[in-house]
Amino acid sequence: MKVGIIGASGYTGLELLRILANRPHTEVSFVTSRQDAGAPLTKFFPSLAGHPQYDRLKMEKPEDLADRADIIFLATQHGVAMNLASSLLESGARLIDLSADFRLKSAEVFNHWYEEHKAPHLLAESVYGLPELYRQQIARARLVANPGCYPTSLILALAPLLRLNLVDLSRPLIADSKSGVTGAGRGLARSNTFCEVQENFKAYKVVGHRHTPEIVQELSFLAGQPVTLSFTPHLLPINRGILSTIYVSLNQPVSVSAFRAIYLDFYANDPYVRIRPEGYAPETADVRGTNFCDLGFFPESSTGLWKIISVIDNICRGASGQAVANLNLMTGCPEDLGLTGLALRP
Amino acid sequence: MKVGIIGASGYTGLELLRILANRPHTEVSFVTSRQDAGAPLTKFFPSLAGHPQYDRLKMEKPEDLADRADIIFLATQHGVAMNLASSLLESGARLIDLSADFRLKSAEVFNHWYEEHKAPHLLAESVYGLPELYRQQIARARLVANPGCYPTSLILALAPLLRLNLVDLSRPLIADSKSGVTGAGRGLARSNTFCEVQENFKAYKVVGHRHTPEIVQELSFLAGQPVTLSFTPHLLPINRGILSTIYVSLNQPVSVSAFRAIYLDFYANDPYVRIRPEGYAPETADVRGTNFCDLGFFPESSTGLWKIISVIDNICRGASGQAVANLNLMTGCPEDLGLTGLALRP
Amino acid sequence: MKVGIIGASGYTGLELLRILANRPHTEVSFVTSRQDAGAPLTKFFPSLAGHPQYDRLKMEKPEDLADRADIIFLATQHGVAMNLASSLLESGARLIDLSADFRLKSAEVFNHWYEEHKAPHLLAESVYGLPELYRQQIARARLVANPGCYPTSLILALAPLLRLNLVDLSRPLIADSKSGVTGAGRGLARSNTFCEVQENFKAYKVVGHRHTPEIVQELSFLAGQPVTLSFTPHLLPINRGILSTIYVSLNQPVSVSAFRAIYLDFYANDPYVRIRPEGYAPETADVRGTNFCDLGFFPESSTGLWKIISVIDNICRGASGQAVANLNLMTGCPEDLGLTGLALRP
Amino acid sequence: MKVGIIGASGYTGLELLRILANRPHTEVSFVTSRQDAGAPLTKFFPSLAGHPQYDRLKMEKPEDLADRADIIFLATQHGVAMNLASSLLESGARLIDLSADFRLKSAEVFNHWYEEHKAPHLLAESVYGLPELYRQQIARARLVANPGCYPTSLILALAPLLRLNLVDLSRPLIADSKSGVTGAGRGLARSNTFCEVQENFKAYKVVGHRHTPEIVQELSFLAGQPVTLSFTPHLLPINRGILSTIYVSLNQPVSVSAFRAIYLDFYANDPYVRIRPEGYAPETADVRGTNFCDLGFFPESSTGLWKIISVIDNICRGASGQAVANLNLMTGCPEDLGLTGLALRP
Repeated sequence: MKVGIIGASGYTGLELLRILANRPHTEVSFVTSRQDAGAPLTKFFPSLAGHPQYDRLKMEKPEDLADRADIIFLATQHGVAMNLASSLLESGARLIDLSADFRLKSAEVFNHWYEEHKAPHLLAESVYGLPELYRQQIARARLVANPGCYPTSLILALAPLLRLNLVDLSRPLIADSKSGVTGAGRGLARSNTFCEVQENFKAYKVVGHRHTPEIVQELSFLAGQPVTLSFTPHLLPINRGILSTIYVSLNQPVSVSAFRAIYLDFYANDPYVRIRPEGYAPETADVRGTNFCDLGFFPESSTGLWKIISVIDNICRGASGQAVANLNLMTGCPEDLGLTGLALRP
Repeated sequence: MKVGIIGASGYTGLELLRILANRPHTEVSFVTSRQDAGAPLTKFFPSLAGHPQYDRLKMEKPEDLADRADIIFLATQHGVAMNLASSLLESGARLIDLSADFRLKSAEVFNHWYEEHKAPHLLAESVYGLPELYRQQIARARLVANPGCYPTSLILALAPLLRLNLVDLSRPLIADSKSGVTGAGRGLARSNTFCEVQENFKAYKVVGHRHTPEIVQELSFLAGQPVTLSFTPHLLPINRGILSTIYVSLNQPVSVSAFRAIYLDFYANDPYVRIRPEGYAPETADVRGTNFCDLGFFPESSTGLWKIISVIDNICRGASGQAVANLNLMTGCPEDLGLTGLALRP
Repeated sequence: MKVGIIGASGYTGLELLRILANRPHTEVSFVTSRQDAGAPLTKFFPSLAGHPQYDRLKMEKPEDLADRADIIFLATQHGVAMNLASSLLESGARLIDLSADFRLKSAEVFNHWYEEHKAPHLLAESVYGLPELYRQQIARARLVANPGCYPTSLILALAPLLRLNLVDLSRPLIADSKSGVTGAGRGLARSNTFCEVQENFKAYKVVGHRHTPEIVQELSFLAGQPVTLSFTPHLLPINRGILSTIYVSLNQPVSVSAFRAIYLDFYANDPYVRIRPEGYAPETADVRGTNFCDLGFFPESSTGLWKIISVIDNICRGASGQAVANLNLMTGCPEDLGLTGLALRP
Repeated sequence: MKVGIIGASGYTGLELLRILANRPHTEVSFVTSRQDAGAPLTKFFPSLAGHPQYDRLKMEKPEDLADRADIIFLATQHGVAMNLASSLLESGARLIDLSADFRLKSAEVFNHWYEEHKAPHLLAESVYGLPELYRQQIARARLVANPGCYPTSLILALAPLLRLNLVDLSRPLIADSKSGVTGAGRGLARSNTFCEVQENFKAYKVVGHRHTPEIVQELSFLAGQPVTLSFTPHLLPINRGILSTIYVSLNQPVSVSAFRAIYLDFYANDPYVRIRPEGYAPETADVRGTNFCDLGFFPESSTGLWKIISVIDNICRGASGQAVANLNLMTGCPEDLGLTGLALRP
């Protein structure tokens, strides 16, 4: 099978290449980077050297790509994929877009949070690429909108409760999320320099982060009614990992074992969701470099709240690893093909 | 003035010595460490070398200390100070205890969360050493209970709102706190080794952390009624710093400028509390090595919640720096004597 | 094929399990830890959860292991393997010892640097498990002494030059090496706590590190004469990675291209050694989680010295990954079976 | 006394402001940043908020500065000071230049390593601002060239040996140096982003780093003859700190105690150089935020080499702290005024 990567010069591109390097029967037929066209791939990313395919690839301009891949990953910034998707689809390729361009079902909502959408006619067709929720639709999709990292972390943590109508939705859900720096991408910004991040911790976009509508959309679909969410992202001095601490009120008493049973049942056929033993607080290092989402549950008798802790690797499960899981579903392969590695810990 | 430090072999001891090194007219007359008695101080802590006083000090056993200091810092683990306090007070010394032994007003509560209290008769006399709330009482105290790090971060963030009865107390307050590793002390534990912490992030003691009753006690005093708190500590891969993200519902509409004005007014005479400009999210690096508590406020219209962000240096403002501020109050010195340094950033 | 791990509770044990998890046709039939016997493996190492084999394993006492594995990894501290090796070999197992017990050919040298050797009769038989130098012997070995991490980094960097007699051996070779903290193992020590390592850097065992005789032994074999080495290890605030900067005088002029050609030729059939392009300084992140050794060469005209920079992942190539490479050789498998992953970067 | 800072928007500017905040009788009368002119200083650097002087300052354009300061710090990039110095000196100010512009005595050497020098007539007058070597000259200087960070680390480590002619200069001195990321300044560069530095280590400018001629100049002055140096800088994943490991051959046998005595004697009146006890390997954390240079000495009998380990805080002792020490000398103040703080450790 041939795949191509448009926008291969960022960290999601690099992570795709890392994962695909070990996926059987996979040929990466092109990698593009408008800015770095002509550069040998392994000169651009020296960690990829020694891989027979990659040693031969060069960055290309994103032009004349028709018929060169069965499935194309779009690993570009927001706003690029919506300009390219129509013509790529017409050329016969199937697309996995890692940006936000096709995640929101409503063009108006997109226009409000981002910019004027250039391909709103594709929003209805695009499938939200969270395998645990949309496995069948992904398998048949021409256009998969790969979920955001924070949304992946939060939706997986709340899906079982919301679908079973167990959450008291009269109050806002509260999600306090902390992300590693790869979440900000490979671009240059003062706030991502080593000296600003090391030995530091801060919240950012404290109100109104652009992942909010995506999360709310999916949580509301699950609940069958509008959900209100208070979401606060923070920047961790680590490369990889998101940990979300979620505060939820249930609308009925549930024992810990019943709570765990709900999740074990909901994710019974999902290879990537690990329901942690009672009392174990998930750690980001447990999922580093993997597609796992680890979940832990903590009832607090003094307040009546449940605390749900969810961890993923933001750039693997929250981006490129999930994209490969979608590739697997789209091509009828085992869902974890190329994704069976355990965490690099420590 | 002569001061002594009992339990000088931990990080709070080291931080006390760092701060006192530049405090005018201060003689550190003894440092004790039962386990390391006899060791030259600057061999034990090489970073202190070159300071004339410290070059001469040796760790001593904590014995025969009467009359050797006007004020004694107890920088020991929980459970030690309550055994030593009575006799030290009788010898005429005034005490600043950095442990939890004298923070809780109720012996029963202490017994429940820690162990059987050995000096419950002193609980009524001890003064909670948060200068912004108890300045007058600290000045006269014989026994000051230096606040915990998480409590300092949270009480300062909530005091103005609670005292003005602006908080909807029908719901639990939610405090999502993240701390650097010095908060765990200098003892050996697997969970504090470099390889377990670096490139990792986790929550710990997700329910029932022992700082909870201390925080609830002071918040309830401020509110004039019982307060319910959901508190979740996390471990950051940094040495120093606590950032707390607090989610609060008010019982009436308040504009951002009015909200800030409340805090500016409440802390008008406090040199260490910095109310940050609108929209600026406090960062732990801004307070590294200082006694500052930086506060930022973020109303969220979609949920009706306020997010309050509070940062301190857990080992300076949250322990040893605050202890020196208390020393200053107890001895009639300017409250910031020896504490005027700005953050070491980056 | 069945393998077992004695001493599976350390970081080399964890890394072995991470690598073996994806090696085809491999059954880990037992894991032992005297101290933690009885503990479910995935409770001990939660990052391993979700792997069908590992979910069923428990730590065992290291007893009655005969006939339970074809090849046994000894991932214990120095001094353990030499007590176990004879009886394990008699039971028919082949051994890969990750400790220093069988690396030195001379019992006297071992006795000098470590302690009285308990199985000196096995030293002649044991094979030094560096595939690039001893591929044939490893294939037939009953007992493989897996190289130390620093030695791996240095021997690979110098082997081609020494074997071709290009080095001026009248002066000491100088190797300035820097290692991540996993090199110190998983035991508890003050010097490995987060707060002592983070934002810090130091040399340790500045003179007389115990890897010195192992390095000197192999360099001298390569040179055909005694080699003098000045070796200085340093502790990096990272989990994984060794970078060695080596200062060498050649005994004749060599151009850069000729220098590179010598290495390219020497390692022509070795999948793990990457000779970097001229001017590229190898980085530890390029090899994280892999078996690669990256080499870069820099002639300095002003001094006449060559600087050779060598990087490996100390716990993968420098320990467990190399052990699996040896397993591959011993069982006639492709040398990189299970080891084809690229670096997890960033 | 009034001081001004030209180029206050970088990390050396921030560090100057941190140090000067606590220096008695010091008024910072202006701070300039061409690019950020108009910005309130504490908005630009929020860690400085709360300081009465700084709360009132704004970044200015570097114009019309005559008569506004007695001493002006130039904390700009290389190439700026040489354009400004003449007119500033004419206006009566005395200058401390933290860039490389006035460190080299030879305009030709400068032209070779940097660019065409614009004020070569000032090179003879400028004084190299290393207090331990040029105390008297600094006191009288109009123009002080503040030393580079690597040079500070190396010159202090070698000065006593070279002045006493104890070094075998027939071989190159070898200096393997490792620096924190603040050494690269506050500008944006891919190589300084968090994700490229965290969990990584590398050498850079392996041959021909521009600090080399400055180091060689001063070492040669000390030796009274040309010195050959092999210098290799590396990038540490820490904010602050340089550790240099130096390999030296002596031209005669010296005992360890004699070696230490030479240094103790040479630096007998220098408050910032700490000769460490035998066997103690200096750590960068011991000097964080201070003006100390810690030195340790290790003879290696097997090779005949001495290893000298030198640590400084690159941005304090290696830049802004040293600049304040020079300010002290130039104004007849105690050399450590404002610089008596001990390391912030951990």
